[in-house]
Amino acid sequence: MNGMSGEQETAEGAPADQPRRGLSRRALLGLLGAGAVGGAAGVGAAAAIGNARGGPTGGSSTTYPFAAEHQSGITTPSQDRLHFAVFDVASGTDRAGLVELLQDWSAAAARMVRGEEIGASGADGGSDLAPPDDTGEALDLPASALTITFGFGPTLFTAADGTDRFGIAAQRPAPLQPLPRFPGDALEPALTGGDLCIQACADDPQVAVHAIRNLSRIAFGRASIRWSQLGFGRTSSTSTSQVTARNLFGFKDGTANIKAEDGSAVDSFVWVQKSDGPGWLEGGSYLVARKIRMQIEPWDRAALGEQERVIGRSKGPGAPLSGGDEYTDLDFDKKGPTGAPLIGADAHVRLAHQSTNNGARILRRGYNFVDGNDSLGRLDAGLFFVSYQRSPEQFVTIQRSLSKDALKEYIKHVGSAVFAVPPGASEGGWVGETLFT
Amino acid sequence: MNGMSGEQETAEGAPADQPRRGLSRRALLGLLGAGAVGGAAGVGAAAAIGNARGGPTGGSSTTYPFAAEHQSGITTPSQDRLHFAVFDVASGTDRAGLVELLQDWSAAAARMVRGEEIGASGADGGSDLAPPDDTGEALDLPASALTITFGFGPTLFTAADGTDRFGIAAQRPAPLQPLPRFPGDALEPALTGGDLCIQACADDPQVAVHAIRNLSRIAFGRASIRWSQLGFGRTSSTSTSQVTARNLFGFKDGTANIKAEDGSAVDSFVWVQKSDGPGWLEGGSYLVARKIRMQIEPWDRAALGEQERVIGRSKGPGAPLSGGDEYTDLDFDKKGPTGAPLIGADAHVRLAHQSTNNGARILRRGYNFVDGNDSLGRLDAGLFFVSYQRSPEQFVTIQRSLSKDALKEYIKHVGSAVFAVPPGASEGGWVGETLFT
Repeated sequence: MNGMSGEQETAEGAPADQPRRGLSRRALLGLLGAGAVGGAAGVGAAAAIGNARGGPTGGSSTTYPFAAEHQSGITTPSQDRLHFAVFDVASGTDRAGLVELLQDWSAAAARMVRGEEIGASGADGGSDLAPPDDTGEALDLPASALTITFGFGPTLFTAADGTDRFGIAAQRPAPLQPLPRFPGDALEPALTGGDLCIQACADDPQVAVHAIRNLSRIAFGRASIRWSQLGFGRTSSTSTSQVTARNLFGFKDGTANIKAEDGSAVDSFVWVQKSDGPGWLEGGSYLVARKIRMQIEPWDRAALGEQERVIGRSKGPGAPLSGGDEYTDLDFDKKGPTGAPLIGADAHVRLAHQSTNNGARILRRGYNFVDGNDSLGRLDAGLFFVSYQRSPEQFVTIQRSLSKDALKEYIKHVGSAVFAVPPGASEGGWVGETLFT
Repeated sequence: MNGMSGEQETAEGAPADQPRRGLSRRALLGLLGAGAVGGAAGVGAAAAIGNARGGPTGGSSTTYPFAAEHQSGITTPSQDRLHFAVFDVASGTDRAGLVELLQDWSAAAARMVRGEEIGASGADGGSDLAPPDDTGEALDLPASALTITFGFGPTLFTAADGTDRFGIAAQRPAPLQPLPRFPGDALEPALTGGDLCIQACADDPQVAVHAIRNLSRIAFGRASIRWSQLGFGRTSSTSTSQVTARNLFGFKDGTANIKAEDGSAVDSFVWVQKSDGPGWLEGGSYLVARKIRMQIEPWDRAALGEQERVIGRSKGPGAPLSGGDEYTDLDFDKKGPTGAPLIGADAHVRLAHQSTNNGARILRRGYNFVDGNDSLGRLDAGLFFVSYQRSPEQFVTIQRSLSKDALKEYIKHVGSAVFAVPPGASEGGWVGETLFT
């Protein structure tokens, strides 16, 4: 963790001649970066410094604490990039091994969200004769608003063959069941289920990738990646400070999402309450992940009117077809000149709305993805849907309602998983401590 | 192109009640965004505005002109994100059809690099009964330093079966030949070759993806994607204003790269000169793309000393093993206590250096990639290498030298292609006009 990086040389104009002990280079960079930007004026200057000094790939120096009442990465304002990975625990790992893995993961995560490298020797310290603790690709990058969120799948509690590998079957939350099959599901086993998940979100993709890579490396021999997904563009906002972003259908996505600032909605719909049980999950949540492939080419060939009818909103401003602007309430009764409702019976916004679903709402936190192209030259693209809810039943209710969704003609659900998300770690503690101790 | 977007509402605090004709919403956003950031102080504020107002995914308002002596995206300071696509021309497309495609692509590219949508009706204008001209996912995003660079592969001039489909076989540049096979190549046909390429680089991945998607849509029936690649983290800097970024081996990559500010090196090594011929390619270049998969796990298990010996530089500061700091000249003769050179005979930096290659240099412009994981849970990751050179022979010389590279144990070249890159379009013109007219 000693020695000077090229970042610092650039920021200060000349190499420093003394290493500064006790402060990581990434932390030090954050300090220098802040000073540098404070002296800049105008968007051009700020953007240039973002690239030239604030980290090669333009990340931010925002940090979120690892130890907190709730895990971060849920109501945290959605960062721009995602690396999501699902792990299966190796057959030789017992309860003590799993606990040790969770402790190791938490210790590493607590360092990385501060913008520090993994372990005592970092990426370039320690002995020449040993592999570096950290893989190094985030060495010059700021914390970039990194959050690392852990979840426990149904099979962690009861394996597919019914065994209680880790002595936690009795602590399994009743609602933590594999999701039911929904009409039209085309799930691929290789993109479905799993024992554990890690959601890494950051404003710089290299920081999110670095987190998953190093956590995967730490798990070596104890757990390995079952499936994973990179997302490049956040969709749903989770804070009133964020504008609504667009999905790859070109529509604003998540206008009506639960926002962190609405504490009463967050308590009602996101955090597991004491009365819900089990006790170890109080202050946690449930995560549902769905990999949704978009039929990009048929959508692009659909008329604007068809696209807007399917969604129930206008494409540009994102206003309901019943009138107003993006944030105007949906009026499902308002009729057009033909006497039919302006927002159709099978419009996506109607079927997803709480009024159609006994009041059920969820906090969405999805990302756009492009995985290249298929053999016909079509983009392999879509939405990696992630939602957090107090119970998976909220998602199930909405998804059942969406079985009549006009949008179904243009999408295909190919991956699916559900996880219980424990509360945050105590100071110096680890995620899962309320379950295992 | 009329109406107000959510961006503008947020930037101004309230919806505007009048559409502003004649100025695209993305252009307008750029203006508003600049005003908003001009009033901010400190890195936190600038970063927050970058996310909240400067576009949902934090892009920049930087723009590069499409019409220029040279195509942009070559000596342009490397943007943070890449979407690269290789196309094959459809069998029914003749010379006139190809010319029309190139003209359509250039017109669309010229709009997109200004931050505008495709076509007259944009993403939400025009008739309800027609598909929108633009797919819409970049509707609220600034130009984000987008560059779109076109290249012509060997098979565009002479098809695999020897036919001269477009009447340009006689104009084929002599150096534009499929690359020779290099020792250790493990090329996959599905990632190799192709008639045309488009490199879209931007500071926001959604803007780069939007460009490739819309250009692919425009090509419908005339050309289709053969293979493609997303890259999330730039490696080599192409400007002295940029710090050196890191590849996924955790090392600084491209310290000794040709920089745009070194005009004499750029002329000597990047741009095709009049004396090189053919005339239509003067001011152009040659692009070599190599998809290089990294053996991440063996690398991560290698001792720090081994990693540094393989590269020939220190991991943290990136200094040559012969001493100094990142930018100190390499001293290949300097010996250590054992009498062996400090930079080994098979060190990557020695074999890639111009002194080992008859003075040959190339302008590198590569990106890190992660394509998910393989069935064993290992990251499918590496470097998407892109280089520009006055002749492919420069790359071939260096790559032959690298056949003894110690790094070869940790990498595998799986994709490969070479393209002639025409000079830039004239004002209102199109890329390829010097070849076809």
